[in-house]
This record gives sequence, structure tokens and C-alpha cells, in this order.
Amino acid sequence: MTSLTEKMADYANPVEMLRNSQIGMYVYPVVTPEFTNWRTEQAAWRESAVLFDQSHHMDELIVEGPQAEAFLAHHGINSFSNFGLNRAKHFVPVTPNGHVIGDHIIFREREDKFILVGRAPTSNWLMFCAAWGNWNVRLRYDPRSPSRPEGERVLREHYRFQIQGPDAPKIFEKMNGGPIPEIKFFHVDWINIGSKKVQALRHGMSGAPGLEVWGPYKDKDYIHSTIMQAAKDAGVTLVQCGSRAYSTNTLESGWIPSPLPGIYTGDGMLKEYRDWLGADMYEAAGAIGGSFVSDNIEDYYVNPFELGYDFYIGWKKDDFIGKDALLKMKESKTNRKKVTFEWNKEDVLKVIATAFEQGRPAKWIDFPQPNYASSSADMVMDGDRMVGMSMFNGYSWNERCLLSLGVVDASVQVGDVLTLKWGEPDDTAKTSAEPHDQAEIRVRVSPTPYAREARENYADSWRSKTA
Amino acid sequence: MTSLTEKMADYANPVEMLRNSQIGMYVYPVVTPEFTNWRTEQAAWRESAVLFDQSHHMDELIVEGPQAEAFLAHHGINSFSNFGLNRAKHFVPVTPNGHVIGDHIIFREREDKFILVGRAPTSNWLMFCAAWGNWNVRLRYDPRSPSRPEGERVLREHYRFQIQGPDAPKIFEKMNGGPIPEIKFFHVDWINIGSKKVQALRHGMSGAPGLEVWGPYKDKDYIHSTIMQAAKDAGVTLVQCGSRAYSTNTLESGWIPSPLPGIYTGDGMLKEYRDWLGADMYEAAGAIGGSFVSDNIEDYYVNPFELGYDFYIGWKKDDFIGKDALLKMKESKTNRKKVTFEWNKEDVLKVIATAFEQGRPAKWIDFPQPNYASSSADMVMDGDRMVGMSMFNGYSWNERCLLSLGVVDASVQVGDVLTLKWGEPDDTAKTSAEPHDQAEIRVRVSPTPYAREARENYADSWRSKTA
Repeated sequence: MTSLTEKMADYANPVEMLRNSQIGMYVYPVVTPEFTNWRTEQAAWRESAVLFDQSHHMDELIVEGPQAEAFLAHHGINSFSNFGLNRAKHFVPVTPNGHVIGDHIIFREREDKFILVGRAPTSNWLMFCAAWGNWNVRLRYDPRSPSRPEGERVLREHYRFQIQGPDAPKIFEKMNGGPIPEIKFFHVDWINIGSKKVQALRHGMSGAPGLEVWGPYKDKDYIHSTIMQAAKDAGVTLVQCGSRAYSTNTLESGWIPSPLPGIYTGDGMLKEYRDWLGADMYEAAGAIGGSFVSDNIEDYYVNPFELGYDFYIGWKKDDFIGKDALLKMKESKTNRKKVTFEWNKEDVLKVIATAFEQGRPAKWIDFPQPNYASSSADMVMDGDRMVGMSMFNGYSWNERCLLSLGVVDASVQVGDVLTLKWGEPDDTAKTSAEPHDQAEIRVRVSPTPYAREARENYADSWRSKTA
Repeated sequence: MTSLTEKMADYANPVEMLRNSQIGMYVYPVVTPEFTNWRTEQAAWRESAVLFDQSHHMDELIVEGPQAEAFLAHHGINSFSNFGLNRAKHFVPVTPNGHVIGDHIIFREREDKFILVGRAPTSNWLMFCAAWGNWNVRLRYDPRSPSRPEGERVLREHYRFQIQGPDAPKIFEKMNGGPIPEIKFFHVDWINIGSKKVQALRHGMSGAPGLEVWGPYKDKDYIHSTIMQAAKDAGVTLVQCGSRAYSTNTLESGWIPSPLPGIYTGDGMLKEYRDWLGADMYEAAGAIGGSFVSDNIEDYYVNPFELGYDFYIGWKKDDFIGKDALLKMKESKTNRKKVTFEWNKEDVLKVIATAFEQGRPAKWIDFPQPNYASSSADMVMDGDRMVGMSMFNGYSWNERCLLSLGVVDASVQVGDVLTLKWGEPDDTAKTSAEPHDQAEIRVRVSPTPYAREARENYADSWRSKTA
């Protein structure tokens, strides 16, 4: 069994295959679980400053060569018309059928050299496409670090740090040895960190300013130490974020990291991709977790309109993969929309209470990160009708509640109270879940990113009410 | 500032120093947090078989030389009269004042060579004593692995695995290539693991049979792979235990891993020990966490009678450190006794509920391991009177409840319902705790090890009752 195609042949359908994956949790590897404690680490990005070590959990793909730009423009939905050396993009490839494959952050290092960073589905797709389309590009692939190195050394091509939070600018000025250049959102410039000149991406979560910096992995300790010292010198409490808190930052900022790549169906190029993909790669070995079970894997796919990525689309490009399909989808009435689900406290506590009773409990909600698969899909119901899919879960100490990100039918409105089915209807072979019964958790539909407005206006009626 | 003595001089008392340590959690390092998920991993030691990788979280001290036995017999309370090459012991050193310093598992590898395994306080004490007493022994010290290696390679002197659970014997027979020798509890013999001959200690938790095996660290992968294959061949579900579940196994077996070493007070040898101890060592850098705050650090000490170690004491030995003090303590009416505290479900849920409310919450109970310091000390109250100290916490999926181990006054009886004060009365500098208010959690006093009898007899009245 060497390919995804051959592996899929062993199962009734790819959903069955992925729901029974034994790969375990989707791990944020190498970085320590907690430097201080995950509550304090979450609070830091809201209250002072946080240091994310992003050196290990993402693939890196370097795309170089005469056709590098043309290749990437053809395989992403994004406009490339304004892609100077001083910019980064949120690069989104879709299938010929218009389904999202994944996303990467893409940096332009030279005219003919790009660095892409993110989950495996986008890297794998681009590696296939380069060969399949016979593009004149050179690819260098540095896969994410092993999930369980167990004491073996782990090296990467680049270190990657992000500093976020209201007090972050004070650190930037210290480590740069003076005011840093004005960098616009998702633009890139050079700054100093001690004696090193490094590239910095202006990033930001929930409105708080932030920078992402990267460079050769051998510099990691120097850069890390210099940042920590700069924070000390600036009098800023810079909290290092461990792997337990890390993945929850997206609940507040609203990015869904883990859409299922829409590559399990479709002919032609997609069929050939499945023949190319190895049986041990993300698409074949990964897991689907959650209450939503459909025989049709396409029910798990999402399109760029649903994730709010439609404003990226470079409609003026002559052609790119998926353009025709997206043109048709554009006006579709069935497109869903991205929202944040705010989980009901009383129902969450009822689920937790079952872990203190004999017998078969509800699915344990692990804190702060209850996901138990590489892609999550939980049913969100309006009565008996499924009106949404919850795709990424997490507890926010800042908000004092469980949140999840997902998509809902167009008819659903912010403020609606729906029901999330928590836990799976059957026992799968997944090693990341203990045997459990399903439970129901009310969720209130909230904007994405989860907004202060929502927090404050619903506080009385929903969040603070006791049973 | 180079010694514990100098560091202590900076604080009003050592309690203040340790309560404000910024070292963070006591980490179980290197081993992955979860191989499957911590519920399944806990269930495995009760239901099938579990593999603990104990290669990283303990110090190892090798004591060799003509006086090796005499040295160890003089510094531990244990009888050495029956210490053949085929035995291990639970070695307990006390101070001249009779207070427990810590404990190690001690193996006799040759007449003149012992391997000791455990937390730092015992290793540190023995290293000091060897020099202080001018003993003719050679010591080799292999400290526990770094808490946060962040991708750097970690090597040890020995690998160390433990296999436990009702189905473990089937694995032993497979990996040995035939029945293993009959090994009595805490005895040692040689078995085969594939092509390697290794030493095995007969261990056991909650009555389930188990073996601990060790050997040169370079053999680790071979041994690990051979054990996993043996389990497969035997048709046994052998679950690898990650670092999140690992430390909770002691809640069911009843060993308290983390008594505070009784070395912060006392003159003579103890004073010189504090001058010898470095300011970055466990005793100086570690943390006390919990609701119990006393100006007098001796209030945190325990003696061997209180931990149930009195039957180890080699009274027939001419002399050993602490003998006189223990003779006096022996008949003391103030000795406490070791018990298990079973935490009340309703009160636990009330604490958890505060994490879903705005404002200052109760101390978060992290699952499955809520400890937030190298030594825990929570007050256990009978009304306004402190009648016990809770010293090690954890959630047991097998028992579906939070348990803790600690000591209570002689007057306290199994079945008594007391109140544990959860959380600290003040904000300390500890990085492992978020700001919180104190809460009260009823606890029922249960035997140690936490017994089936207790579970079943209290089930109706206590555990299964809903609010």
C-alpha cells in the first residue's frame, strides 16, 4: 500500500478511513507544553506580550526559479498583482472544483524566491503540481518537526518567532536599538535583533500589534535570548507561550487552521494527485474527529467564500486552478459563512460532570485544546436540522469560555442559539478519543473574529447567568 | 549568591523563598505529553497494560567502592541485612532530626555497586554526605533530563521502562521467549528482551503485576521496539503512557513523590549542607504550592512514620543518621498518618465553574495533574482546625474522581469528611499559577492505597450522588 488511492480502496469511503485513523492528536511539537501555565500564557497576548515559538509546527516550502511567481499565482486564488518584496500573503490554493486545500503564509524573499509556511496539505499539493505541470521551479521542502521526538535532536531550516500583545512595541524598539520602521499589516521589513538583521512580518491578533521574525535555525538561541533581554530592558512582561496554549490563540483571532483538503474526490488532476500522495502523508494518515458523520466526504469540504477568503481572489488573473469553479460558486445560495460559536457554560459543565460519574461519560473536553484530530467536524443543529459545522475548538481564559470556529448556513444569524453535538456517535479506532457518549451543548453564534461587542452585549443574558 | 544559605538570607524565611520560586511546574520531561490520550493511558494500567518510559524524569546516582554499602546503610533508615544482588529497596534518608529528605529506588548491581533512582533531594544529600563524611565511595551523578529541551538532544546513562497491568505477564513471556523466572515483589532477576539480557525489577501497582527494566541508553530504541512487538505478538493492547498521565499513577498506588526535604533548619551537618547546596539546585530553586502557609518551614516536613515507612527502619543497625531522632519520634502522639483524599464532585465542579465566569476565579484544576509546584501543601480542615496536609494531587479516570495523597492527625478516621482549601491565600511570584481566589473542596478520607473497598462502600453515599 503506497498511495492514498490504494489506501482509500481498503475502506468503504474516505470518511471511514479518516475517522478511524490511529495517528493520534494533531500535535504542536517540540515546544514545551507550558513555560508558565496556559492561563497566564493566554492572558499575556491580551494584557502584556507573548512570545510564540513557531519554529516547529509548520511545514516550510521554498519555491525558487524563473517560474516561481507564475507557478504560485496559478495555484493560489490570490491576486499577485501587488506582491512586492515587502509583502506577505495569506496564500489559498483550491482544487479544480473550488474546494479549499489549505493555506500558507507566503513571503517573497526575492523576485524569484518565495517561502511558504503552514500545514502539509498546501505543501503536498504544490510539490505535486510542480511536477505534474512541468513547471520550471525548484522546491525545497522542510517538513514540520516530528510529533514525538522523545529526546532526539530536532533541526529546522529556520527559526520563527512571533511577538504579540499591547506591550509588544516596547520590546521591538528595545531589540531594534531604536524605533522600528512603520510596517503595514502583512507587510515585511528589516529590523535589528541585537547584532542580527532579520526580516519581520507585521502581524496582529485581535487588534494587538505583533511581529513575526525568522532566520537561520542556528541563530535561534541568539535571537531568543536577545528578545527576552529586550523585554526585560523594556520592563515588559513577555510570556513565552507553550504548545498547550498556542493553538487556542486562533479562537480569538478567527482563523480556521484545519479545513479538510478537498482532494478525496474528483477526476483528472485530483485522481492523479491521490495516486501521487503517499499512504503515510497527512491526507492519508490524518484524522477526522467530531460528531458529524457523512458517507460523502465532500460534505466536509469548504470553499473560500465560506471561510471569508473571497476578497483574496485574483479575478483579473487570466487563469488559476479553480477559477471556473469559483466563478460558479460565487453566486451560490448554498455558501455558508464563518462564525464563532460560544459554548454554553451550563452545558459544558454538564459534560465535565460526567467525568465524575461511573459509567460511560461524555467526550472529555480537554483544556485548553479539546480537538482530537487533524480536522474537526462537529454538527451544529437547529432542532433536527444541521445548519453548521464546528471546525476548531478551544478554551479562552481571556473570554472565560469555550469557543469554536466553523461555518453556518446563510440563514443563521449572529445571536442565534444552536446546539453543537459533542462527541462521536460510534466508537472509532481513533487513539485520541476515549470511549464516550454524545452530548449536546448549546452554542451562541457570534461574529468572527470574536468581538468585544459580542462579549459585552451577551454577557448578561448568556454568559454570566448561572443555572 | 552561590549557596542555599546565601539565597535563604534574602528572604524572611525559606517558606517565602520557596512559595515565590519562579521555576515553574515540576515537569516530567522529554516524554511526549500524550501518545494516545491521557484517559486511555490511565485506563490501560487498570484494564490491559501500560508502558511507562521512566528514562528522563529521575536522577540517577551510582555509588561504588569499598564502603558503598556502609555509606548507604549509614544514610538511609533501611535495614541492609537482607540486601542481596537480587533485591531492590525503597531507600529513605532522613536528617539527623528524623525528617524525611526524599526517597530513591536502590538497586544493588554488584557487592560494591549500587544504582539509585529518584528525585534530586536524595541525590544531593548523598553527594554532600560522601564528601562531608570522607567516605571511600565513588559517585557518578546523572541528573534528570532538562525540563524544556526545546529540540536539543537529551541523553541519559540508562533507559528505564516499566510495564504494568493485568495483561503485562503475557508480554513478558513473549519478549523473554518463554516463561520468565518467578520474581518476588521488589526482587530483581535477569530476563531476555529479544537478543539482550536485561535486569528486571518486579514492581506492581494496585496489585497488578509489573516489571521495570533498564540498561544502557543506547539500547533504548531496540528495547522499546522489542517490547512493542512482543505486545503485538501476544495480542495485548499495550498503551504507551505520556507525561500528562504518568504522574497520576501514584494516586492509585499511594506513594507520595514530593515531600519537602527537611533540610532548611537544623545546625551542624544540616547547616553545612545548606552551605554546600547551590542556589540553583532543587532545594533552593524548587517551589512550594498550595494553601498551607506557615512561617515555620518545619511545618512542611514529614517523618518516616507519617509516610508509612517505619517498617523499613533497620533498628538493629548500630547507627545511622537520624536513628536517635527516630527512636524519640517512634512513640510520639503527634505523628500523622498517610491517607488518600477523595475530592467531592460537586465542590470540584463549582471550582471549575468559576473558569466560566468573569472576574477572579478559583485556582484552575488542571487535568489530570493539578500540582503547580515541586512540593504541594494544601490545608485540610476539620471546621477551623487544620487536621491534615494534602501533598500530591491528581485526577483518576479509572476512579472518575480527583484524589490526593497526604497526612492527617491520628484522630482522623477513614470515612471522615474534611475540607481541603484549594488555592493560595495570596498572589505569589510562582509562574505556574494564575491569579486566583481560594475555594473549599470537601474531601473524604480514604485508605492508602486507595482501595476498592473504599470505592465501593462509599459509592452510594458520596461519589455517585448528584447535586
